[in-house]
Amino acid sequence: MEQRRQKALEFLRNNHENLLLKLEEFIRIPSISTEPQHHSDVRKAAEWLADHLKALDMEAVEIFPTQGAPLVFGASRSGDSDAPTLLIYGHYDVQPVDPLEEWEGDPFEPRRQSNLLYARGASDMKGQIMAALNALQAVQSAEGSPIRCKFLFEGEEEVGSPNLYPFIQTHRELLACDLCLNPDTGMLGPELPTITYGLRGLAYFELRLRGPSQDLHSGSFGGVVHNPAQVLCELIADLHDQDGRVTIPGFYDPVLDLSPEERQELARLPVDEAFYQKNAGVKKLWGEPEFTPLERVSARPTLEVNGLLSGFIGEGSKTVLPAAAMAKISCRLVADQKPEEVKQQLERYLRKHLPETVSWELKSLASAPPVLSPRDSRGVRALSTALEAIWGKRPLFRREGGTVPIGAYLQELLGIESVQTGFALPDDNAHSPNEKLNLQTWSRGIEALVHFIYNLSEGGS
Amino acid sequence: MEQRRQKALEFLRNNHENLLLKLEEFIRIPSISTEPQHHSDVRKAAEWLADHLKALDMEAVEIFPTQGAPLVFGASRSGDSDAPTLLIYGHYDVQPVDPLEEWEGDPFEPRRQSNLLYARGASDMKGQIMAALNALQAVQSAEGSPIRCKFLFEGEEEVGSPNLYPFIQTHRELLACDLCLNPDTGMLGPELPTITYGLRGLAYFELRLRGPSQDLHSGSFGGVVHNPAQVLCELIADLHDQDGRVTIPGFYDPVLDLSPEERQELARLPVDEAFYQKNAGVKKLWGEPEFTPLERVSARPTLEVNGLLSGFIGEGSKTVLPAAAMAKISCRLVADQKPEEVKQQLERYLRKHLPETVSWELKSLASAPPVLSPRDSRGVRALSTALEAIWGKRPLFRREGGTVPIGAYLQELLGIESVQTGFALPDDNAHSPNEKLNLQTWSRGIEALVHFIYNLSEGGS
Repeated sequence: MEQRRQKALEFLRNNHENLLLKLEEFIRIPSISTEPQHHSDVRKAAEWLADHLKALDMEAVEIFPTQGAPLVFGASRSGDSDAPTLLIYGHYDVQPVDPLEEWEGDPFEPRRQSNLLYARGASDMKGQIMAALNALQAVQSAEGSPIRCKFLFEGEEEVGSPNLYPFIQTHRELLACDLCLNPDTGMLGPELPTITYGLRGLAYFELRLRGPSQDLHSGSFGGVVHNPAQVLCELIADLHDQDGRVTIPGFYDPVLDLSPEERQELARLPVDEAFYQKNAGVKKLWGEPEFTPLERVSARPTLEVNGLLSGFIGEGSKTVLPAAAMAKISCRLVADQKPEEVKQQLERYLRKHLPETVSWELKSLASAPPVLSPRDSRGVRALSTALEAIWGKRPLFRREGGTVPIGAYLQELLGIESVQTGFALPDDNAHSPNEKLNLQTWSRGIEALVHFIYNLSEGGS
Repeated sequence: MEQRRQKALEFLRNNHENLLLKLEEFIRIPSISTEPQHHSDVRKAAEWLADHLKALDMEAVEIFPTQGAPLVFGASRSGDSDAPTLLIYGHYDVQPVDPLEEWEGDPFEPRRQSNLLYARGASDMKGQIMAALNALQAVQSAEGSPIRCKFLFEGEEEVGSPNLYPFIQTHRELLACDLCLNPDTGMLGPELPTITYGLRGLAYFELRLRGPSQDLHSGSFGGVVHNPAQVLCELIADLHDQDGRVTIPGFYDPVLDLSPEERQELARLPVDEAFYQKNAGVKKLWGEPEFTPLERVSARPTLEVNGLLSGFIGEGSKTVLPAAAMAKISCRLVADQKPEEVKQQLERYLRKHLPETVSWELKSLASAPPVLSPRDSRGVRALSTALEAIWGKRPLFRREGGTVPIGAYLQELLGIESVQTGFALPDDNAHSPNEKLNLQTWSRGIEALVHFIYNLSEGGS
């Protein structure tokens, strides 16, 4: 196997320019999913990917239409016997380019500048998709891939992946695998390879309170009617205690404790109080005092008000006593919380705490379970060893505060463990003008993925 | 004087039809102040009024242009020596007519039906203006008016009287008087003549809180950033105690107690718990338990949230941790509270209670002091006796929960007492389709105003 490994790495060294030209070809398709005028480009990118998969001698390649952008699926030929099947996820859609005037060149004409490749999608995440495909191509060139790789590429990640869940639900056999790799979470610095082993889940609600039958004159009724905007504020105020803990009974019951060892691991990450203060633009942080900022945003659940609306919000003064008040409220969840349980807890809370002066309605708008992979699983060990082989140091292990639909869906629907990594850097301008890809990091990433594939085939390192 | 009184009343009986035709002429001008396409009609109504004042043999009539609709001023010749000067206020603009399809005829073509006159503005308040002018005409016909009457008519009451305060401020001498009568507050039923001796004041604020420098991703920052929407809710929740009392220190200090005698007087009004419940469309009332609903909306100050806005309020779910949150908050004030003092109290409260995780800004958007006339003043006694002479019973004395700019402004700028009455009825559809005026009540009202003028000239009854 060591020979095949070296041969695959040699393939990469010999084909660097060709692989880069291929990435540039992919990048030139302006597959902006949020903009209707680019929907044909989104389809074009799907077709380009399918063609590329076919060129990689796949066993099966298929484009699945959806109500939105198509999903592209590919499966390589079976690997060695007993070797696991790896599902690699990616999204081929990209962010819009505005403000265009801030770009130093055409966003869809890749521009190399020393070690950097500037273009929309170069980092997020066409570069990451091609890194995975290049790794497969490399191992294929060395007497065939030792494991079976499946690929699932969507074109709607930047618009919330509306068709991903139903697709996975109805294609369980097609997607059957032992492990999922999502190379969309990046690394914390060019010398800081990173594995994301946890993702927070989401339970997003809209709460509407109704008081009087219509907006009232605050002069004629102020003093006898319980103002629903006030009731909403009273409710929201009570949802946290003084220390920033959520007060909903049972909310923390399923939350897994952080072990001293995991806290130590997380403490290695180069994100301290000052980091969050600077990036949020706040004078002072907030939250549960017994946890570090990083722990609070990644390993602790939260409840946030995402929106508030009631009464008169225009210019000037209108003396209305509003008939209704609305709040968007969402919880970030951590293992082992379940969105459905949190909804029931919140409903119980509302039934108990809302006064009879108002009626209310709670709608669930989005939900995803949290993801937490054991840091000593076969997949994580294989990836960790692979990254260490290239960077010469143990990767950082982090939990991500956000929610990545694919990880949550695969865990929920297929019971599949998901590991996240990637070779994008924090300053790649992923959603901003002048997005760029560090080509050195990218090349090292491809080599690491080659190691990952062989490590997996060997049953972990 | 009794002879003159009878002669004036006789004038009214003999000229009923002519006076009514004049009112209809006035009504036909569609002076809708909220609609730009009617602004020329608003000016036309001002000119019609000025012409009518001139026909009444005034000493001075003038139209004062403003940035909006003009103000019309008139002053009758001096009355008997030592007799007081009465300033009568009115607004010649009317509400819009939508929904037009619900009208049973042209809103600006007055339609008589038995005892009712249907038209926009008939009740609110062209009918009331003409009642006052007819009363003057009647006393003039009886050897001249015993008192001097001044008139101030504005054309922007329905859009918040934006030019009234500066006009009064710069025309103190012109408006100098002993008493103001505002016939815009109506009566509680056709057999329930009503004097409104108190109006609540207003202090209207916009509060903006700022937290992070921009909207944040609730996944990446939820748990370390104090959400300004939550801070706003916590603040608002604390502004009332369990019993619905405002918690701002000092807020109630200047509030005059209700005497047992005044409470008894207010208890005569036909507005009970069921009245407020039905009109507000609520299952249950709310507010300070030691006061009746009527006392709470008229003789007690309140604090209301008029509007809330923060973060994402569109359809669906957006996981934003908002950078800012805004509330419109207003207080209804009662004597002897002062808007400026309330602003200072609120500012002190905010300085003390808002955490250092947010910055804030408080803007004052509108303010008016409360109005409270003694129920035994010369003006109130003259009016009470006048109403009793016609209706054969003591009028009801009420305090109004709303704010009437003219009353507040005259008290603040000229130190002038204001008494409010009028002959509009609660079911006149003042701001709705098929507005109507009860012509019997109107005629009785004009007679009552004749008595009022003579009573005033006699130094009260």
